[in-house]
Amino acid sequence: MDFKFGNAIVGQSGGPTSAINATLSGVIRGCAEANARGEIGTLYGMKNGIQGFIEGYVTDLSVLYGDEEELSKLENTPASALGSCRKKLPDPETDHEIYTAIFDYLKKLDIRCFFYIGGNDSMDTVDKIHRYAKRKGIDILVMGVPKTIDNDLPITDHTPGYGSAAKFIANTVSEIVADCAVYSVPAVTVVEIMGRDTGWLTAAAGLPTAAGNPAPDLIYFPEKAFSYEKLFADIENAFRKHNNIVIAVSEGIEFEDGSLVGEDPNAGLDAFGHKQLSGACKVLASAIKGKFGCKTRGIELNLPQRCAAHIASLTDIKESVAIGSAAVASLCAGNSGCVVAFNRNSDKPYSVSFSTHPSPMLANKIKYLPDNYINAEENGITEEFYDYALPLIEGETSPVYKNGIAVHYIFDNFFKVD
Amino acid sequence: MDFKFGNAIVGQSGGPTSAINATLSGVIRGCAEANARGEIGTLYGMKNGIQGFIEGYVTDLSVLYGDEEELSKLENTPASALGSCRKKLPDPETDHEIYTAIFDYLKKLDIRCFFYIGGNDSMDTVDKIHRYAKRKGIDILVMGVPKTIDNDLPITDHTPGYGSAAKFIANTVSEIVADCAVYSVPAVTVVEIMGRDTGWLTAAAGLPTAAGNPAPDLIYFPEKAFSYEKLFADIENAFRKHNNIVIAVSEGIEFEDGSLVGEDPNAGLDAFGHKQLSGACKVLASAIKGKFGCKTRGIELNLPQRCAAHIASLTDIKESVAIGSAAVASLCAGNSGCVVAFNRNSDKPYSVSFSTHPSPMLANKIKYLPDNYINAEENGITEEFYDYALPLIEGETSPVYKNGIAVHYIFDNFFKVD
Repeated sequence: MDFKFGNAIVGQSGGPTSAINATLSGVIRGCAEANARGEIGTLYGMKNGIQGFIEGYVTDLSVLYGDEEELSKLENTPASALGSCRKKLPDPETDHEIYTAIFDYLKKLDIRCFFYIGGNDSMDTVDKIHRYAKRKGIDILVMGVPKTIDNDLPITDHTPGYGSAAKFIANTVSEIVADCAVYSVPAVTVVEIMGRDTGWLTAAAGLPTAAGNPAPDLIYFPEKAFSYEKLFADIENAFRKHNNIVIAVSEGIEFEDGSLVGEDPNAGLDAFGHKQLSGACKVLASAIKGKFGCKTRGIELNLPQRCAAHIASLTDIKESVAIGSAAVASLCAGNSGCVVAFNRNSDKPYSVSFSTHPSPMLANKIKYLPDNYINAEENGITEEFYDYALPLIEGETSPVYKNGIAVHYIFDNFFKVD
Repeated sequence: MDFKFGNAIVGQSGGPTSAINATLSGVIRGCAEANARGEIGTLYGMKNGIQGFIEGYVTDLSVLYGDEEELSKLENTPASALGSCRKKLPDPETDHEIYTAIFDYLKKLDIRCFFYIGGNDSMDTVDKIHRYAKRKGIDILVMGVPKTIDNDLPITDHTPGYGSAAKFIANTVSEIVADCAVYSVPAVTVVEIMGRDTGWLTAAAGLPTAAGNPAPDLIYFPEKAFSYEKLFADIENAFRKHNNIVIAVSEGIEFEDGSLVGEDPNAGLDAFGHKQLSGACKVLASAIKGKFGCKTRGIELNLPQRCAAHIASLTDIKESVAIGSAAVASLCAGNSGCVVAFNRNSDKPYSVSFSTHPSPMLANKIKYLPDNYINAEENGITEEFYDYALPLIEGETSPVYKNGIAVHYIFDNFFKVD
């Protein structure tokens, strides 16, 4: 049978999230529908994103068309089930063996639909594949689907993956506040939250009050200059209320001069030139101990922020599936070099719709936490942030548990294209 | 109305767990039944354990008698809701103002039943209160209820709180393994798990395979001497299978000479003379990077191990309620200076019963992970450990969520006894 758009391929790229497999499932569901309409044939999955595909490694995802049980398991599986990469493609205006390899494999598999799920660096890949194909006159449609726990992409109201990370953070910080409250001796606990450049994730630490639980006393964002003078004054104020202070900070908080509070002079740069960070909580815990002489503790929430699928947001998972399917629909409408985004129609009742944009609009750009989500004291969140964030963490998923452990979907049938 | 055993009091002590409030609920439920039988009147709760009671701070828990909704919320609330302490009582054979204060308040409130929920240090408190009362001829029955995530108490098959911590660890490590598997570049991730002296919690990191998920490649326990030579050889072997190595280690792993791998020379001692630890994962990540030159990452699971109530084990929560009620029943049968323990009747089908023991049998003693739960290579677990541990993490709880956040029960009505 001849399919209007030939075969398709999908890849996952960048840091994992708890929802990136839900988006993969959405692409599979969308392609299954396009298949039934005679538009898309086989759907392949790249092993380790474009990095593995350059070497010809793929799996056949069409076997999952219509398999509700397995797709549901996939939607509750954390981290990029197809594998991921951090690969920056060269300039598409010059010929390069990488593009030759990619387009040779695409041709061999009769692939004319290319889906790529990732963050802002990955939208750069979407743009480059699209531009290279256009320059060479190759018949292929290229569509990006956003994901990032960081929520720092422009255009889209929020990113798939953010809601689940924010839900993990809100619940875990709430539990940590409960834990830290049990002793009567003065103590300060500093919780370090992901977010190199933006405070979207850190802001989620303030949400526990929406359930009537205590929240951290103080929250610091990379958007506002950090100073020890202000921190110590804030802590002194907090100690007037109670003995157990909990502080949430972004890993990316900076001093006025732009230097990082948690800077490790030995840390290297990643492939995209980002400084590898870790340590604001330890640095601050030590400084606070020195100043106040009380017990301190630094807690890095670390990887579970992006992979704690057992406490994913149902809203996030459902939307992540939906945006994957929406990307397929948008491609089948003839769009290419584009990415699908969420538009928020209203907060109460919460509803979103989808729109398609040229991928450079989301590539290599950063959306900061706006001023109206940060309180006047620059150490907490506002009511407007609750209105924005609470719908995104609403609802609990139902992973399948076996022997007390959530079952993960595992792809174990990759092969190398001849 | 005159109650056979007068009024009662309960305190929580030592490190929090996800199940210690379930045991508190069990004591409340048990006292409600004893109340209906005319045996126990009012049940008071100590603020911050014996530390706060010395100053006369209590709350009236009888208001919760029969309140299913609030008790259920309490059972799903992490950390000691009454507050906790780490207070070591002086020798009960000598008179001391602390005992005078305690017994004055007990007399004022006509308390003749004393319940104390805690770990091995807290069982020491149970023993001392009992002995002091006996020496002074004071009519009071004293009963301990064990709790500790560490599972290192003798006599009892396992401890309330362990199952929930083990379930959190098994699920979180499973998610971390999934996350670490996404990239194709060689990398080693070291996950540090609580357990100063014993490997019970660390062993739980090996359980993900029971759900068909990958588990860490290597697991190291404090029960077996650690050496870099063996670690590096084990990692070399693991790299022959795949590129993404995950290693689980106990915070308490030691070299042959007894020195701690993660020792921080600046760390102090707590009130019981325990060295405060933190850092085996960072120390090892650095050493592995030096040896293999690959990317490494250290992850401390930290406080969520003892407070991640949202992923508590249903078995643990139910048993923790039951052992609290069993303690009340045992006291009403006339036992004092005792503690209640679990006896395992069988693994398959899993069933437990309760028994009462003199509290010194559980105080200040440690139960190590036995050799038959550690594999011959001393870097993993055995089938026998699965048989032991899987029943303890079985079943998922149903916390009440509001706005996407699990609702916690909060006691806000403490008062000072006149």
